[in-house]
Amino acid sequence: MFKHTHQFRMRYSESDQLGSYYNSRLLEWMEVGRTELIRSTGCSYSEWEARGVMAPIVEATLKFKGRAAYDDLLEIETICSREGRARLRFESVVKRAEDGQLVAEGYTIHALINRAGKPIRIPDWINNLLTGEHDL
Amino acid sequence: MFKHTHQFRMRYSESDQLGSYYNSRLLEWMEVGRTELIRSTGCSYSEWEARGVMAPIVEATLKFKGRAAYDDLLEIETICSREGRARLRFESVVKRAEDGQLVAEGYTIHALINRAGKPIRIPDWINNLLTGEHDL
Amino acid sequence: MFKHTHQFRMRYSESDQLGSYYNSRLLEWMEVGRTELIRSTGCSYSEWEARGVMAPIVEATLKFKGRAAYDDLLEIETICSREGRARLRFESVVKRAEDGQLVAEGYTIHALINRAGKPIRIPDWINNLLTGEHDL
Amino acid sequence: MFKHTHQFRMRYSESDQLGSYYNSRLLEWMEVGRTELIRSTGCSYSEWEARGVMAPIVEATLKFKGRAAYDDLLEIETICSREGRARLRFESVVKRAEDGQLVAEGYTIHALINRAGKPIRIPDWINNLLTGEHDL
Repeated sequence: MFKHTHQFRMRYSESDQLGSYYNSRLLEWMEVGRTELIRSTGCSYSEWEARGVMAPIVEATLKFKGRAAYDDLLEIETICSREGRARLRFESVVKRAEDGQLVAEGYTIHALINRAGKPIRIPDWINNLLTGEHDL
Repeated sequence: MFKHTHQFRMRYSESDQLGSYYNSRLLEWMEVGRTELIRSTGCSYSEWEARGVMAPIVEATLKFKGRAAYDDLLEIETICSREGRARLRFESVVKRAEDGQLVAEGYTIHALINRAGKPIRIPDWINNLLTGEHDL
Repeated sequence: MFKHTHQFRMRYSESDQLGSYYNSRLLEWMEVGRTELIRSTGCSYSEWEARGVMAPIVEATLKFKGRAAYDDLLEIETICSREGRARLRFESVVKRAEDGQLVAEGYTIHALINRAGKPIRIPDWINNLLTGEHDL
Repeated sequence: MFKHTHQFRMRYSESDQLGSYYNSRLLEWMEVGRTELIRSTGCSYSEWEARGVMAPIVEATLKFKGRAAYDDLLEIETICSREGRARLRFESVVKRAEDGQLVAEGYTIHALINRAGKPIRIPDWINNLLTGEHDL
């Protein structure tokens, strides 16, 4: 298990006419959370892709809990763990930084594939960096 | 239960550098599917909002099943049903129109609220239009 | 010169908290206009890419003229012409279909490049299909 | 004239299948640049809206100069000046932070309107904060 917190501000382009964030932006924020978590291990996700490991999303579950407005400072906490031997699970919680109000939470499951698009097991170097679970 | 099929083409802006659609676009396509399903009842969702009924998303579950590329003709099937007395459930299946290949599937749950943001039960007129279930 | 008109509906995801469309969506709509214009010549832009011709945008000028709301039926008229020997120009006008109210207008300039990313002149087959100008 | 520099990372959701950023993202980045410039004056744009001054975009000119990839650290420099007595002009330059490579440049023109949607002159307090030009 590996955990990381990242702050960012909601963009005007992410609002909608109801005055909160449009629902699909949550998936984009969760991607930012994963990116920053992976960077914090010392080896960024773009380095994964350069090494030939892609991690396409296969599943997402999202719960929309509260509003957020343009320019709100948001905080996303991301937790990574293994999902079996071939998949990674990223859990996310988004809060307003100012008052801790819950905005959304959810998780995504990612397969790992090589450049040929073929599913692979979690490589040791990723497992070591990301989950710290050494009992594969 | 109410069902509707809608075709659309994948936009270049919806692709990503892996060459398929970026994951958050699925939620935007599912919104288009809901919009067209609701329009097909004879009373569009913008008419709902004009009548003071908003249907914000509270939950989504998504499964990413296959690739889609720029300009692919996609077909989204949307099914609406009641989720208890105060929520609506929209299930979606996205396929490539040409070969029927499954692209994604999932569902969203929506609360109903009034202009003051207060949760309301499914109004009769919506229940009649949309679910055809008369046993509330 | 080649001209094409395409209708589409504004998506909820394209609105913002001011209640009209968010400005960047215009570029996405203009891409849809170009895609449909090119398709109408009998050879789609994805076919261009399959033949090794990419047309990245190098310049855009946009004028935002009026509001549009979720679910408005919009009409985009796109006109293609040559811009010298190596570039294409697409002019766009977006109106509300119902009342003809002007929403936005602008143009984009596109270079043509091959798979190696090297600029190329407009190939004859594209010039014939798209501009109908035979005096290169 | 008022100037501000802001750094951010390109998101995966902002890439497209050509492997660079999709063109409409530039307008979203320019909005982030404006937001951070305005915040740096000590009165954020959301505070403008709270005070009843909205600044909708009326015009944009964009030049796409170079590529950017997922996770690139980008730097946007934004310069604000008056455009007559009723409009603001924001010029933007986007570079890759690592090597200073030019990615894009452009400007946007914004009208100022009140809550009723009526055009207004630049209020003194905005002029003082933002342009530092005292000769209106």
